[in-house]
Amino acid sequence: MKKPLILVSNDDGITSPGIFHLVNVMKELGDVVVVAPNRPQSGMGHAITVGDTLRLNESSIFEGVRAYECSGTPADCVKMARHFVLKDQRQPDVVVSGINHGSNTSISVLYSGTMSAAIEGAIEGTPAIGFSLCDYSHQAEFSHTHNVVKKITQQVLQKGLPKGTALNVNIPPWRHESIKGIRICRQANAKWVEEFDHRYDPNGRSYFWMTGNFVNFDKGEDNDEWAIANNYVSIVPCQFDLTAHQAVRVLNEEWDILN
Amino acid sequence: MKKPLILVSNDDGITSPGIFHLVNVMKELGDVVVVAPNRPQSGMGHAITVGDTLRLNESSIFEGVRAYECSGTPADCVKMARHFVLKDQRQPDVVVSGINHGSNTSISVLYSGTMSAAIEGAIEGTPAIGFSLCDYSHQAEFSHTHNVVKKITQQVLQKGLPKGTALNVNIPPWRHESIKGIRICRQANAKWVEEFDHRYDPNGRSYFWMTGNFVNFDKGEDNDEWAIANNYVSIVPCQFDLTAHQAVRVLNEEWDILN
Repeated sequence: MKKPLILVSNDDGITSPGIFHLVNVMKELGDVVVVAPNRPQSGMGHAITVGDTLRLNESSIFEGVRAYECSGTPADCVKMARHFVLKDQRQPDVVVSGINHGSNTSISVLYSGTMSAAIEGAIEGTPAIGFSLCDYSHQAEFSHTHNVVKKITQQVLQKGLPKGTALNVNIPPWRHESIKGIRICRQANAKWVEEFDHRYDPNGRSYFWMTGNFVNFDKGEDNDEWAIANNYVSIVPCQFDLTAHQAVRVLNEEWDILN
Repeated sequence: MKKPLILVSNDDGITSPGIFHLVNVMKELGDVVVVAPNRPQSGMGHAITVGDTLRLNESSIFEGVRAYECSGTPADCVKMARHFVLKDQRQPDVVVSGINHGSNTSISVLYSGTMSAAIEGAIEGTPAIGFSLCDYSHQAEFSHTHNVVKKITQQVLQKGLPKGTALNVNIPPWRHESIKGIRICRQANAKWVEEFDHRYDPNGRSYFWMTGNFVNFDKGEDNDEWAIANNYVSIVPCQFDLTAHQAVRVLNEEWDILN
């Protein structure tokens, strides 16, 4: 049986510990190609590089793995992998992104570069998974993620994914108690409430740091926030068709400027 | 009756013709506050500024309008408007973004900074609209957009929007024939197929320009691509809950690693 071809990217950059762990798991499952940003790209959402140039250089950072570092965003990396690095070659059987240093549950999925790489894979029709560890530390403990990441990727390679979806996988931080299991969830109804820390630079000009508090409005038990809080791995299948189909019906009924 | 408070942002930057036209329409409808990027931010998707500082300066670019230029992304602008500029003040009745120089139909909604400003408004619970003109030219003709933008914004101020949605409005380019009407649509099933134009800089180092062709797979007549091609204004109500609810059911049935 042919080994699967696995494309790896991330948003923390090619030197981050998270991608190192992800590549190590993927080497156990198939042939690996890495195209990842050459610097941290957190919070880049689904940004792409428009009106500027891109650089791409081979990297020997992962032993025995074909790897490239790219000056662009996570979405750019997946596009370059498909349409330049692997052009006219075999295309990946799965796209995996991460492991992100920090949670991408709930509304954070919108701001997540990790997930934009995965969504970009899904747009191309390739099963795709974004992995995040709910621990922001650069020195986070990743040992407990190994089997989870392997098991989920194997399942996706075996069964595929529903058309037009990519998985948003969040893994609880390392705790003394083992992870309880894996749950398919919906995106929790929560948001960030920002605060702006207003300061002055040495020249007396004002600047800001954006900080924020995460506020969870969701009382359900079928969402990703609940899963992480209760020590389960959460998996939210995400779609890139943003149409609110119910709202299409409502507006068609209620509006009087249509024709 | 109290005049509505209207927050205006965009992704082409505060000096672009598109935002000038949008502010002019909004001045006819209410009190206007502008917080917009200080430079073009096209293709920024839902990026936010993480790990870097933000600048915000008052601008007198729009006559008689309170306006600020921000060093951040469109999403940052809306966050700063709510949590700094209008902190402890009356919050906007509607957030409008644009008018974008170029189409944001179909899959382009994911990459659109224009729409991320609108979505950010929707996350805050404010009715929000992203306006795009399907003409990429800086010198595009905007005269035919005036009444469309006004009519749609009035309708939203009057009737509100379904919870958790923002409108993605695309307006056909100026043609000799008048616009046929306004349609509520779904996001067309289409994608960009990228090509990378590989060049060498004066030092002999390689770089790339990303170019692409838009490919429409959608045969339906209820989508935004069809509407624009047939000279209708398209309105897609977009949601920020990315959960593919049907896929939640499928994975729960098919997977054997859950518990």
